[in-house]
Amino acid sequence: MSESLLDTVRERTPLVHCVTNLVATTFSANALLAVGASPAMVEDAEEAAELAAVAGALVVNTGTMSRPRAEGMHAAAGAARDAGTPWLLDPVGVGPLSLRTRVASELLGLGPTVVRGNASEILALAGHEGGGRGVDATASVEAAADAADELARTHGTVVAVSGVVDRVTDGATVHRVGGGHPLMGRVTAMGCALGAVTAAFLAVGDDVLAATLAAHAVVGATGAAAGAVARGPGSFVPAWLDELALFDGAGGADGAAAQALVDPA
Amino acid sequence: MSESLLDTVRERTPLVHCVTNLVATTFSANALLAVGASPAMVEDAEEAAELAAVAGALVVNTGTMSRPRAEGMHAAAGAARDAGTPWLLDPVGVGPLSLRTRVASELLGLGPTVVRGNASEILALAGHEGGGRGVDATASVEAAADAADELARTHGTVVAVSGVVDRVTDGATVHRVGGGHPLMGRVTAMGCALGAVTAAFLAVGDDVLAATLAAHAVVGATGAAAGAVARGPGSFVPAWLDELALFDGAGGADGAAAQALVDPA
Amino acid sequence: MSESLLDTVRERTPLVHCVTNLVATTFSANALLAVGASPAMVEDAEEAAELAAVAGALVVNTGTMSRPRAEGMHAAAGAARDAGTPWLLDPVGVGPLSLRTRVASELLGLGPTVVRGNASEILALAGHEGGGRGVDATASVEAAADAADELARTHGTVVAVSGVVDRVTDGATVHRVGGGHPLMGRVTAMGCALGAVTAAFLAVGDDVLAATLAAHAVVGATGAAAGAVARGPGSFVPAWLDELALFDGAGGADGAAAQALVDPA
Repeated sequence: MSESLLDTVRERTPLVHCVTNLVATTFSANALLAVGASPAMVEDAEEAAELAAVAGALVVNTGTMSRPRAEGMHAAAGAARDAGTPWLLDPVGVGPLSLRTRVASELLGLGPTVVRGNASEILALAGHEGGGRGVDATASVEAAADAADELARTHGTVVAVSGVVDRVTDGATVHRVGGGHPLMGRVTAMGCALGAVTAAFLAVGDDVLAATLAAHAVVGATGAAAGAVARGPGSFVPAWLDELALFDGAGGADGAAAQALVDPA
Repeated sequence: MSESLLDTVRERTPLVHCVTNLVATTFSANALLAVGASPAMVEDAEEAAELAAVAGALVVNTGTMSRPRAEGMHAAAGAARDAGTPWLLDPVGVGPLSLRTRVASELLGLGPTVVRGNASEILALAGHEGGGRGVDATASVEAAADAADELARTHGTVVAVSGVVDRVTDGATVHRVGGGHPLMGRVTAMGCALGAVTAAFLAVGDDVLAATLAAHAVVGATGAAAGAVARGPGSFVPAWLDELALFDGAGGADGAAAQALVDPA
Repeated sequence: MSESLLDTVRERTPLVHCVTNLVATTFSANALLAVGASPAMVEDAEEAAELAAVAGALVVNTGTMSRPRAEGMHAAAGAARDAGTPWLLDPVGVGPLSLRTRVASELLGLGPTVVRGNASEILALAGHEGGGRGVDATASVEAAADAADELARTHGTVVAVSGVVDRVTDGATVHRVGGGHPLMGRVTAMGCALGAVTAAFLAVGDDVLAATLAAHAVVGATGAAAGAVARGPGSFVPAWLDELALFDGAGGADGAAAQALVDPA
């Protein structure tokens, strides 16, 4: 599963449009290039609408929110919806911070294809208690299970909650993805990069749930591989980008390893 | 001294709110994560006020200044003052550039807990001659001694002037911190990262002068260690973040080495 | 040629003012520091005008365009023109995206010293067909030859089209620069960093064409060297910055290697 979608990303180099936060922009672009996609970080409202309509997929990420960027997000998400472009909402910091919480709620109404966040963000987006204190989760993945299922069913979206083991649901079925490494929690914008990579897979896969799982499995497998060679969080970043770029495609051992991370027995 | 505060940072993972510049945002967040804190880069005025009130510490950094970010700075610094949150002012580029010079002067009136800058910035902030030409210092640390002492006494703040040997004063006593490596001057936003790490120590230490010295000593020691293994400025960045994360806590050799950098005989 | 200009950059550490995009800002600053220049990323219109008037060179880069940054670009380019500061226009994403296409066209009227872009951007800036789909080129360097020559002659500028082999023209003569490595296409903002390094050379060299060629040759030679030691795109970034900083000056083997990349027989 995951290996063939990765091969397709590399063959088609989908254009992935990101309206993302200031911390994540360079790292997300490099993650997209490493996995084989073509990133474009465009946030002006006029340009964002133009690009979202022709992109293979769109990421809207609410970190370092600003009012002008919120306009770009609305324009991009609206254009994506009208054009049938798949798009992912990454509700960074939603809960304790007012502007982004309002904006994310409005964006949710535009029908994201996938919502990806940590447990606190998913709880807050669903209107439950348990929001984080800043951008880090203070709740566990399983504590956000009901909120995730409810979001998925109400909005017809796939919801991925990131944690030590990720939980991905379409509201009907639930899957878990392992892998990863503790150093991933010591690198900023790692979740944002996971969201961007997921969008690259959405751009080439018609099955939203399968594409989301495949992307999470590739990130889990490459994160584990990078963690095994990194000395600390600084060397993790280049190591992970290298692993993403060098990861085997179909028929390779890496692809099989990634697939084994999804719903292990 | 420095080792026990570092241990406390790691135990408490204080939330450090940064309203910082576009060049420094990712690197500062990664430095905070590496040292054991939890970064949140939030600049919208509404959100900045919300976060500064609950954060462990705040950094306000005037690089790549913009008018909207200046509003976020005022809101954050005002909320920090009202909530008793310690905050650090990093007056990047103050002197030759008008907007940030005005904003930094206004922010100084809100009573920063610590001011950290290079000699040219401290001279300019104190209204003395000798400002830099851009963001790099053209004056020596000792040339800014009177300006630093005056700022510290007038505003009741600790003032840290960064250079080959850092000079830290509360207006009554003066301390110097060695260590570091010449490659630190070849990496952008290194001073901004020092400011962010200092804020993490302010979040857990009641003695402002001691916390500032401890943070500078840890950065000096880890900078020297990273410089010893880096091939050049590119490899210095991941090496330094690794060193920050791997640095010993209380009772370790690293902590003693850091402490020895403060006021060596 | 190239080695002596590189030596001059290192001796004079020219202040290079960048009004650049959110993806490129940290990487461009680090590339400028590595090559020996002093970067200043300043985009507020008031401050940008102040700095461009005293800087050694200016870069205006249209990626992640916003309306406030467009004001800063106009202010900076106008101040550079009035002060005789050399400046480089990097028309990132011009063609498919409306706001930056209008802004780049206006900036072209302010007389950039050098225009550097990929083939699709140069075609679009000259008003030809063949624009890219996002920020990546979809046209070949040679397909943009007529557009580049026309831009150079009409606007009295040197035009550098980046690709596997770069093509540099002043409208009268044409030069090609080899070197580089395929990993450079897998790293975001690599072209932006090339533009920034070119500006550092413009700050110290009176011969615009020679300075542009020298900068491209140094980037080509250091890119090839970094590609030879990097494991993938992640490790390429620190390796390239190290190579830039360690590159030999006049009389060294590196300088000769760089010179050999220009118009090889």
